[in-house]
Amino acid sequence: MVQRQHPIPVSRIIEPQSIALIGATEDYAKFGGRILHHLVDHGYAGRIFPINPKRAEVLGHPCFKSIADVPEAPDIAIVALPASSLEAAIRSCGEAGVGACIVVTAQLGEFSEEGAALERRIVEIAQAHSMRIVGPNCMGMIVPAAKMALSSTPTLRYAKALPQGRVAFVSQSGAMMGSLFLQAHDHGVGLSGMVSIGNQADLELCDFLEAFVAHEGTEVICLYIEGLKSPQRFRALCLRARRAGKRVLAVKAGRTDAGTAMAKSHTSSLAGSYSAFEALCREAGVLLLDDPDQMILCAGILDRNPRARGSEVGIVCASGGGGAILADHLALSGIAAVAYAPDTRAKLAQDYLPSHQNNPLDLGGHTGGLEFGIFERAIDAVHDDPGAGVFVYVMTPQPMMPETLAHVIHTWKRGEKPVVLVLNTSRFADDLRQAALQAGIPFVQRLQDLIVALQVLGADHAAETALRADEAHRPAHLPQVHVAAKGFLTEPEAKRILADYGLSVPAAQLCGTLDEALSAAGSIGYPVVLKGVVADVVHKSDLGLVRVGIGDDEALRAVFAEMAQAIDKAAPGAPLRIDVQQMIGPGVELIVGLSNDPAFGPQVIVGAGGIHVELMKDVAQMRAPVTAEEVGQMLRRLRIWPLLDGARGQGRMDVAAACEAIARLSWLGPDLGARLVDLEVNPFRVTAEGAYALDGRGTLATG
Amino acid sequence: MVQRQHPIPVSRIIEPQSIALIGATEDYAKFGGRILHHLVDHGYAGRIFPINPKRAEVLGHPCFKSIADVPEAPDIAIVALPASSLEAAIRSCGEAGVGACIVVTAQLGEFSEEGAALERRIVEIAQAHSMRIVGPNCMGMIVPAAKMALSSTPTLRYAKALPQGRVAFVSQSGAMMGSLFLQAHDHGVGLSGMVSIGNQADLELCDFLEAFVAHEGTEVICLYIEGLKSPQRFRALCLRARRAGKRVLAVKAGRTDAGTAMAKSHTSSLAGSYSAFEALCREAGVLLLDDPDQMILCAGILDRNPRARGSEVGIVCASGGGGAILADHLALSGIAAVAYAPDTRAKLAQDYLPSHQNNPLDLGGHTGGLEFGIFERAIDAVHDDPGAGVFVYVMTPQPMMPETLAHVIHTWKRGEKPVVLVLNTSRFADDLRQAALQAGIPFVQRLQDLIVALQVLGADHAAETALRADEAHRPAHLPQVHVAAKGFLTEPEAKRILADYGLSVPAAQLCGTLDEALSAAGSIGYPVVLKGVVADVVHKSDLGLVRVGIGDDEALRAVFAEMAQAIDKAAPGAPLRIDVQQMIGPGVELIVGLSNDPAFGPQVIVGAGGIHVELMKDVAQMRAPVTAEEVGQMLRRLRIWPLLDGARGQGRMDVAAACEAIARLSWLGPDLGARLVDLEVNPFRVTAEGAYALDGRGTLATG
Repeated sequence: MVQRQHPIPVSRIIEPQSIALIGATEDYAKFGGRILHHLVDHGYAGRIFPINPKRAEVLGHPCFKSIADVPEAPDIAIVALPASSLEAAIRSCGEAGVGACIVVTAQLGEFSEEGAALERRIVEIAQAHSMRIVGPNCMGMIVPAAKMALSSTPTLRYAKALPQGRVAFVSQSGAMMGSLFLQAHDHGVGLSGMVSIGNQADLELCDFLEAFVAHEGTEVICLYIEGLKSPQRFRALCLRARRAGKRVLAVKAGRTDAGTAMAKSHTSSLAGSYSAFEALCREAGVLLLDDPDQMILCAGILDRNPRARGSEVGIVCASGGGGAILADHLALSGIAAVAYAPDTRAKLAQDYLPSHQNNPLDLGGHTGGLEFGIFERAIDAVHDDPGAGVFVYVMTPQPMMPETLAHVIHTWKRGEKPVVLVLNTSRFADDLRQAALQAGIPFVQRLQDLIVALQVLGADHAAETALRADEAHRPAHLPQVHVAAKGFLTEPEAKRILADYGLSVPAAQLCGTLDEALSAAGSIGYPVVLKGVVADVVHKSDLGLVRVGIGDDEALRAVFAEMAQAIDKAAPGAPLRIDVQQMIGPGVELIVGLSNDPAFGPQVIVGAGGIHVELMKDVAQMRAPVTAEEVGQMLRRLRIWPLLDGARGQGRMDVAAACEAIARLSWLGPDLGARLVDLEVNPFRVTAEGAYALDGRGTLATG
Repeated sequence: MVQRQHPIPVSRIIEPQSIALIGATEDYAKFGGRILHHLVDHGYAGRIFPINPKRAEVLGHPCFKSIADVPEAPDIAIVALPASSLEAAIRSCGEAGVGACIVVTAQLGEFSEEGAALERRIVEIAQAHSMRIVGPNCMGMIVPAAKMALSSTPTLRYAKALPQGRVAFVSQSGAMMGSLFLQAHDHGVGLSGMVSIGNQADLELCDFLEAFVAHEGTEVICLYIEGLKSPQRFRALCLRARRAGKRVLAVKAGRTDAGTAMAKSHTSSLAGSYSAFEALCREAGVLLLDDPDQMILCAGILDRNPRARGSEVGIVCASGGGGAILADHLALSGIAAVAYAPDTRAKLAQDYLPSHQNNPLDLGGHTGGLEFGIFERAIDAVHDDPGAGVFVYVMTPQPMMPETLAHVIHTWKRGEKPVVLVLNTSRFADDLRQAALQAGIPFVQRLQDLIVALQVLGADHAAETALRADEAHRPAHLPQVHVAAKGFLTEPEAKRILADYGLSVPAAQLCGTLDEALSAAGSIGYPVVLKGVVADVVHKSDLGLVRVGIGDDEALRAVFAEMAQAIDKAAPGAPLRIDVQQMIGPGVELIVGLSNDPAFGPQVIVGAGGIHVELMKDVAQMRAPVTAEEVGQMLRRLRIWPLLDGARGQGRMDVAAACEAIARLSWLGPDLGARLVDLEVNPFRVTAEGAYALDGRGTLATG
């Protein structure tokens, strides 16, 4: 028995010096057989200890009857046994001083309570021996940096060599690891290491993310996430990555109920709110995608290109039709095709009429006869345009393909700006694909992959400015307020809380008679608004229970009488209660909301408000609390921003007041903590002078 | 000299019995050489007449010194000469009685006035000889039905055989024809014929569309369009295709200004309004896509599968993570994953716990050990689910791939419902891809292609009910109205026209004094609205020039005085003009617009109205005139439909009145004809009783 003194560092799990294979076999049809073959074939240089009581050796490696017989404590042991043998095997590994067990065995925590209990037991056993567990229900690791092909995926037999590079992948899906390994191999994406983490019974995603952030040979880290165990740690690690100049890309399942259900059954993960995760990614500089294939392709492009110098792109293609379609897609995706500088046009003019100096540039639209110099000059001119932050070449079947590709590769090697190569040639001209793989230039094949790659390059370029590294400081002039209310908040209760937090709420007085109303209007000041207060009516305006623009006593008398009738119609016999409110001038209506996300903490959302809020779906979200400046960033992301900023010759709304108010409101998040269920202000009206909470509702915990 | 009596039928151009090659050569590096090699290598069985004064024979075919020497009048001649030789060559062909010249020569009409003039001359020459012209600036034709590889694209050398089938493609881009030929060949899409139409100087897209609609060996027709020369003919042909049980798919460039500019420089096409083209496609059953690669893949899937039985899908995959991502994409794309019937669940229960009986179903989530029967049973169960209109199999690297694919192919061959196969395996397991190609089952490789294919299958299923074959009949009670106005219409003028067409317009009276206003309110009836009439003010409400809810004389006195001040502030010294209008109750606000599209004729749009109209972008469009029922279809497509239909317990709005009114308004389109520039009603308010045009503006031609 060997007792480990300290747990093995995660970096040593990823690049171990020795591996024990429990249940080793030469039979390729078996899990254990495939792992051994792959490990040996791809040249793992560390020590391999096959454990098999029935064999003397497998694939030239002497076998051991049990792990206890191994002459040293293996760094890791890979275990692919049935659940019934698992506990004993884990115990043996612990007693042998193994650093970490990579547990492939599935149908545990993601299947049943029984399976979950077994998971817990093996973790306890491991902990008792200072041993770590990866998985269970994982598919091993593929670590080119260590020439370690420790997985049964048959794509490891297909690959003659492991593609070396600086892209890492941590995955909650084992099958996806094999699939993305394949995509990386076939598209020129070089890998440092891929780890499949399964059910995260012990080691979790953040442990491997941390290791790859620290790993010198890794520059870009991809993640496939179903459920995050430690969101705050995740956030801190992603910020650390950015500070170290590394990029993190992620795809997360669970944008919808359907995806969430599947993730749960897959690795027993609870997905949490996707919009809160999106907000976290934006604030931590994580590039969020929705297609894993695209993620790995983009990672390769980021890794093997310099940083984008700007977000505008220069594109050359070889199909007029394809170029027109691409021009449409770029415009609709918000990707700007650079307007060529006069110098660029002068260069293009040698071979292209002004009417054909487009972006994308169709090489075939040249004047005169075909000769390669035309293509070369055009590629150079567009690439060298000073406004182009990124250069793109789209290859479809065309004349002079080998020369053209060679020149694109040469241009990429100049290393001045990112060069995105699209090889949309299927199996045709496969020697070109080989040339690209040989040269190490990553490529995509399809239009949609190009669009996403350009969006990612643009987002990467912009990410630095959107980082939220520091915690927001409580505004000095925002007092700590004791909020006594519980449960469902009425409008007056909600507005009281908002007013306590310094928001502007229209002056109001609840009245039961005309005289009270006249008196209230007198003290508030005309013009006023009358709102009928009737229980269970959420949308008052539709029933004539909101009347605005009452300018004097005469008008008030008339409107009061009509509203009394409307109230009687809406709720016969109900007591007469009419709220006389200060009338706020016209402005832009927002919805402002505060909620508590169980995984990601308090969230503030701002968006286009009023009655169409569910149909507009124009919202921005951030973790609370937020600063006024951050509210400004959120407002600028809204489609209605032009209305706030002064469209249609109306002048700007008082955006500063809105930002200040929403920032204050956001502190209810941390202040209320778990007491906050949700709070909503709709409409929050931003006028030319001042911003006002015209309505409010919310729910606090009842306990 | 041979004088043709009649022009050659287009069907005979597509499947000619004899071809003359002007400038024939064996040199593969030359256009003419590639065409000859491809034609011969792919086994064209008709008569080939190479024209070359310097050679006795090329590739075993005797040469002719000039086309005059050919012993018969060739059906077609393919001409790839420089522009300087073109006119003479066309004349020679005409004099030799050639049926049609396929003119590859580029840099003509799409380049310069000079080039356009040459184009016109060759068409005149051709017409004088009853000869047709295809192109110029075209890339020939690829017609597997005739074993005719009449194009220089090198993809024809790559393809060992022409993939036979029933998908046709007519393209305004020659390079795209070569590219889509490649995609078809590599993804199991069988082709009848592909034609590249270039600049459409003579024969145009509709001529070939018509021929393929009539062609017995064609079932699905794909189109790449830049500019439509004859939109009405196009529409009629698409409806004819639907009646013949054939499908038409299209991709059109020019959704944006950038795309339009490129299309113009490419084939000198004027794109026309994309939204009007979209409306035409919807009404004629054309399946509109935005990616040409996806178009040809979808065509293959439509062609080699039975019609979808419903729009819900049943999916089996082999990756839990991939399945979760797919579930998200389906939900977000509006594709319904069928809820398994109890019978299906009972079958799945043999191998899958209830928690793992998802859709998509992850094969790997089974209980017990791995054996192929599990996969077979699962595929059968999901495919056979009675609610599944379409079955999908997503293959990524997984266990037992050959057996699994064989079973999917077997399932597809049962021919009960469409089976969409996704082979997302890059170059791995290429024997499987070969097996699929061999079996003739079309496949896609990527998630986004699957989503689009499912959307197309759904749209195809729904298309029949949305067809507009018949012309709308003028409502009997809609009088022919003489509209005298010209130029820019004021609100009263616009409302007068609308009232003449039977729309409900609030009663109104323009007043200059308080007494006039009181008198007007008395006759109209309270409550009233006051609107300040000030020139050059479009958005009155923001300046206090719209006051609503004035309930009696007292209120009116007060508001009149305030508005007089507001008018003076907005336009000092302007005459006092206040419109006293009947106040319309609350409702849902729409925008209704009428315009004249130069290509597609009068268009009516309806959408979410009010001040946020540009931000909501919630609109539906149809060619005018429309029936009330068709207006109802448009309203149901809007995001705000739930508000019209009675959301939030408010009861339905008077949708019938809205449909009737908008249908009447739409007749202004054909009635005004070219006089109509545009007309807009915003807001058009649909209340619980009645629908009202609350504002109106427009422009008629000044001539």
